Amino acid sequence: MPKLRISWKEYRDRIERVRGVMTEKDLDAFLVTNGVNIFYLSHFYHMVTERPAALLVLPEGDPVFMGPLLEADHLRHQTPIVGDVHTYLDYPGERHPIDLFADWLTGMGLGKARIGADNPAGAAGTYGYTGPHLNERMPEAEFVKVGEVVWEMRLIKSEEELGLIRESAKWGNLAHRLLQEYTAPGLWDVEVSLAASLDASSAMKKALGPEYETIRGGRAPASAGFRGQVGWKSAMPHSIGIGRVIEDGDVLVTGAGADIGGYHSELERTMIVGEPTQKQEKYFDIMLRAQEAAIDSLRPGVRCSEVDRAATKVLLDAGLKGLIRHHTGHGIGLQGHEPPWLDVGNEAELRPGMVVSIEPGIYELGYAGFRHSDTAVITEEGAELVTYYPRDLESLTIL
Amino acid sequence: MPKLRISWKEYRDRIERVRGVMTEKDLDAFLVTNGVNIFYLSHFYHMVTERPAALLVLPEGDPVFMGPLLEADHLRHQTPIVGDVHTYLDYPGERHPIDLFADWLTGMGLGKARIGADNPAGAAGTYGYTGPHLNERMPEAEFVKVGEVVWEMRLIKSEEELGLIRESAKWGNLAHRLLQEYTAPGLWDVEVSLAASLDASSAMKKALGPEYETIRGGRAPASAGFRGQVGWKSAMPHSIGIGRVIEDGDVLVTGAGADIGGYHSELERTMIVGEPTQKQEKYFDIMLRAQEAAIDSLRPGVRCSEVDRAATKVLLDAGLKGLIRHHTGHGIGLQGHEPPWLDVGNEAELRPGMVVSIEPGIYELGYAGFRHSDTAVITEEGAELVTYYPRDLESLTIL
Repeated sequence: MPKLRISWKEYRDRIERVRGVMTEKDLDAFLVTNGVNIFYLSHFYHMVTERPAALLVLPEGDPVFMGPLLEADHLRHQTPIVGDVHTYLDYPGERHPIDLFADWLTGMGLGKARIGADNPAGAAGTYGYTGPHLNERMPEAEFVKVGEVVWEMRLIKSEEELGLIRESAKWGNLAHRLLQEYTAPGLWDVEVSLAASLDASSAMKKALGPEYETIRGGRAPASAGFRGQVGWKSAMPHSIGIGRVIEDGDVLVTGAGADIGGYHSELERTMIVGEPTQKQEKYFDIMLRAQEAAIDSLRPGVRCSEVDRAATKVLLDAGLKGLIRHHTGHGIGLQGHEPPWLDVGNEAELRPGMVVSIEPGIYELGYAGFRHSDTAVITEEGAELVTYYPRDLESLTIL
Repeated sequence: MPKLRISWKEYRDRIERVRGVMTEKDLDAFLVTNGVNIFYLSHFYHMVTERPAALLVLPEGDPVFMGPLLEADHLRHQTPIVGDVHTYLDYPGERHPIDLFADWLTGMGLGKARIGADNPAGAAGTYGYTGPHLNERMPEAEFVKVGEVVWEMRLIKSEEELGLIRESAKWGNLAHRLLQEYTAPGLWDVEVSLAASLDASSAMKKALGPEYETIRGGRAPASAGFRGQVGWKSAMPHSIGIGRVIEDGDVLVTGAGADIGGYHSELERTMIVGEPTQKQEKYFDIMLRAQEAAIDSLRPGVRCSEVDRAATKVLLDAGLKGLIRHHTGHGIGLQGHEPPWLDVGNEAELRPGMVVSIEPGIYELGYAGFRHSDTAVITEEGAELVTYYPRDLESLTIL
């Protein structure tokens, strides 16, 4: 049976690491409201809405969940990691959920406690949510903002996490292969994307068997697409959509990945429809060399800023300073973007177990954009590329 | 040509309404960091990431955008509503974007101003973003939290907005029809969902023409699916995923909609695979009566809590108190959930132009869930149902 999620042991180890921080920072409890961080500590993934939800880690025993009633059965099904579950019927409710959170926390003996929290408001606060801050309702408690703790833990991936990310890359590769096969002039990029995502997800499910289920919802479980980076809109890194269909001569910037146990990989390619022009070849080549320079620079102890500079140097040497639109990459794991940032302003050092995207780009307004992205794991010796789709122009030309 | 977005005039009117609030609250400027609210005021939709972005409304002139360089060309293409654009290369950058925001605001003469803000931190703060609060960098300015202002505006939909929501319902209806046609035992719900979404999106695009483009990305432009509410997991309102395939005898809870100019509608149905059992019929019937009671109660001046009570009364009278998992509905428009909340704790009155989902449900753990959702517009006289897919059991039985 393929491994499709983090083991219960590793989730429990994560809770123990939070407790280590609690001891260090002299905290009586640790309250997490970020939905992805709740998942990281519990394997309970939920749709974050206006309804406040939080996971509470105490010095002993299983973590406690506080949230809307509609998640209670869902949580019990999804994870054995959580102990007590406190629920309210719905938001805003006859009593506001935050008032109930205060009651429950006080009932647990935390009325005068020192509580670490990623968000002392007690709620993620999306969709027009309004409510008091928890500390207004628990004036004798002390809330300490410790938002970075779980993010710090997430920075370094375990072997189990790397296994899921590698599995994700495999199905992202399939989705991308189908995307390339299905791409043709006259089609709307969204159609090509949905067809490739459907077939890749279906194949992935049949290969992985009944144990596989999508954790995060939203996009297709295995997906590939263009996100609107088609033709002249490929010059906009976050284009989102384009009205026209794919045409001969277009530069396309793609993206592919898959959800394995909540984990992701990132694979992006620049494809060209029709015989490449000299200018397309030139930009493609410079982009590829910039990416290779960044990949070559990856090893423990190297600063994130240095990786960014390694890629940028190739672009500057080619005289393309004015065509840079973003830094070289970002961390990836449970979310599409996460620390560490491969940015000139980030002096943090790479460490083994970090997983990053490497994706310098060239963008000429009115013309086209050029960007590959690969997912790399920092190893003891250097780096391992988790994505392995061809990167050369010939392989990415659609004739 | 079908109308596929809000007119520039209406966007400009929205800015004027913000200015009205600024005058009322004695504000020199108004800073918006919520991505959807930025879109509401500007027709500029962007992927919200770790990179801070904000729209600034001043007493005169076009709104000013501050954000990452990679959005600058995108914004210029998408909207004529925005004036000056200030950009930073990337996050975190050699100088933190919030420091630059402070510089730019000070350069606009706002160093000692009274600035309304949905988030005085100056950043949406996702994906592990960290940074100072704007007011730490502009100690002589006064930041006033006015998060509710744009949400209040969004509560009442204009005729243009209603037009887009009605158009959305049409394509959601198509997606749902295809979903029902494609549903069969032995298929994974995700496959059925992606196939229906592909074909509906493709048809919608061909019908609406080159002007149509997806605003928000992510899901398919027209989509339908089950979100994991299949068989026993239909008892979990936010199930997300299920590993097994659809089986004869399953209760399925669906969802469908489409993105038209950034606006949505919500259509959800309970479908039954195979001849319904007596118990399925009974729960279906009670659910339907609860929904009808809520729909019948809709008219201006009625409190949101009363609508919730109208539905709940049917469930209580049927002895199903223990099977309620959430309130009766929520607002809808630019987001899947938004105010007003049709909740026992919300004493606000319905007003003409509000758009709400009506979706009381029955959920029996280990068995199944039953929920329809329709989108209703509050009119001067009562309410108009925007969604029109059949609601009766016979129409929703898959034989």
